[in-house]
Amino acid sequence: MDAPKVPEVRENHSDSFGLFFRAKKVLYKGKSRYQQIEIIENEDYGRVLFLDGLVQTTDQDEFYYHEMLVHPALCSHPGPRDVLIIGGGDGGALREVLRHPVRRVWLVEIDKKVIEASKKFFPWLGPALADQRTRLEITDGIRFIRETGQRFDVILIDSSDPVGPSTPLHQKGFYEQLKRRLRPGGAAVAQAGSLRYHLREHQVKSEFLRQIFRNVSFYIGPAPTYPGGTWCYVFVSDRLDPKKKPLKSPPPGLRYYNGDIHRAAFALPNFLRQVID
Amino acid sequence: MDAPKVPEVRENHSDSFGLFFRAKKVLYKGKSRYQQIEIIENEDYGRVLFLDGLVQTTDQDEFYYHEMLVHPALCSHPGPRDVLIIGGGDGGALREVLRHPVRRVWLVEIDKKVIEASKKFFPWLGPALADQRTRLEITDGIRFIRETGQRFDVILIDSSDPVGPSTPLHQKGFYEQLKRRLRPGGAAVAQAGSLRYHLREHQVKSEFLRQIFRNVSFYIGPAPTYPGGTWCYVFVSDRLDPKKKPLKSPPPGLRYYNGDIHRAAFALPNFLRQVID
Repeated sequence: MDAPKVPEVRENHSDSFGLFFRAKKVLYKGKSRYQQIEIIENEDYGRVLFLDGLVQTTDQDEFYYHEMLVHPALCSHPGPRDVLIIGGGDGGALREVLRHPVRRVWLVEIDKKVIEASKKFFPWLGPALADQRTRLEITDGIRFIRETGQRFDVILIDSSDPVGPSTPLHQKGFYEQLKRRLRPGGAAVAQAGSLRYHLREHQVKSEFLRQIFRNVSFYIGPAPTYPGGTWCYVFVSDRLDPKKKPLKSPPPGLRYYNGDIHRAAFALPNFLRQVID
Repeated sequence: MDAPKVPEVRENHSDSFGLFFRAKKVLYKGKSRYQQIEIIENEDYGRVLFLDGLVQTTDQDEFYYHEMLVHPALCSHPGPRDVLIIGGGDGGALREVLRHPVRRVWLVEIDKKVIEASKKFFPWLGPALADQRTRLEITDGIRFIRETGQRFDVILIDSSDPVGPSTPLHQKGFYEQLKRRLRPGGAAVAQAGSLRYHLREHQVKSEFLRQIFRNVSFYIGPAPTYPGGTWCYVFVSDRLDPKKKPLKSPPPGLRYYNGDIHRAAFALPNFLRQVID
């Protein structure tokens, strides 16, 4: 007799390739106004959050992505006080920002249900939201950027991928608005997509960002459960250059990021240089 | 009616997680004295070689691994003439070595059938074997190292993983033998396994290698279809320090490796430092 079949969740990285996760338990399954939300328990990666079938966060590998999204900007800025995170409803980026002595952090997530589900299953989110420095706003990031009177020292774009519902967050108009919300000497970092699957998007983004910011620096880092396994980020600023020695030591307790990793992340493969330079 | 089912080949990275490849065609399926050999055609990654169910080589991503296995050593050595590759029957490492002005390259592969199958389906292997500088030896790498009278400037270990049939190639006794086959000023690089899945093996290897060599430097690079998506390599030498500016420019035509990537590859995540330092 066959063993009872364990349900499996798959993520297609293309029509013919992808990942499978056996689901020891399906912890959450729901649909919001914006997307399908699913959280499973997997033996290898722990709790895994899928939005519209794409892995966003896993217990075991989220630190690579969240540390690399947050610390290069926070360690390059000499004294970030007010930080804005757009997206990032799982709270991983928020947790990393709060390791720094910032004054306030805005978390602007469009989907309340992502916050609710994540709060239940990712243990870091509750305490991060309860931190007195945190301001949670459930709203569209594009609208928030357009309407807020606030200015920020660092803005982090923790959106989903450059194809699909987050597309506007990867476009020129958004970055023009965003620039107006940066304080002088401020910087923004955005997740830019897969090193393997989004080369065309990196090319387009590189072109328009160079029209808006003096400094546009792509960097990369591992992300085991994201398509292709290596992720791209882009750092933009008019004054800060992240490729110099980071101005500050990283906060303690990090698992991936350190000063050497910071400098190394800006070394880019030939095939990426060819499309973004 | 359902569409006709396309066969699928899977690689388990653990009991509960892994990759799936749809097989447009199964190009080769055979069993040698040593292992199961399978080559499929996949829309995304092209031709994919599996040994005992583990991805070894794909058309589309083999360059990350082969460039990072070969060029850090070949560019650090001031004038490598004689190079030995142990394993690497798919010919990717051989192709990369031949980009350098070396005098001779030995390819020591235990499994004749891997060579035969790869020759049919990986177009670079035929020309690389036909190069006048190439010496193909079908034999056990451990025996070759013990018995050869030859000495080498660079030795590259392109074996399978630190668990399974290649285990002896990841052990102390082998590296002691190997050291005797290096010329003064020579260096060896070995693939060391996954950044995510082989931490215990990195710890053990780091300890015994430091008893044998003055310089032991781990480095990392992406490998999209290998477990965890980021791969570890280890550079050993008594005289050469690969963490200094590489002595030579890389050969033209590379897709991943360059001087910046070389230096960056030696920046290691905190969690790896903790086990190997």
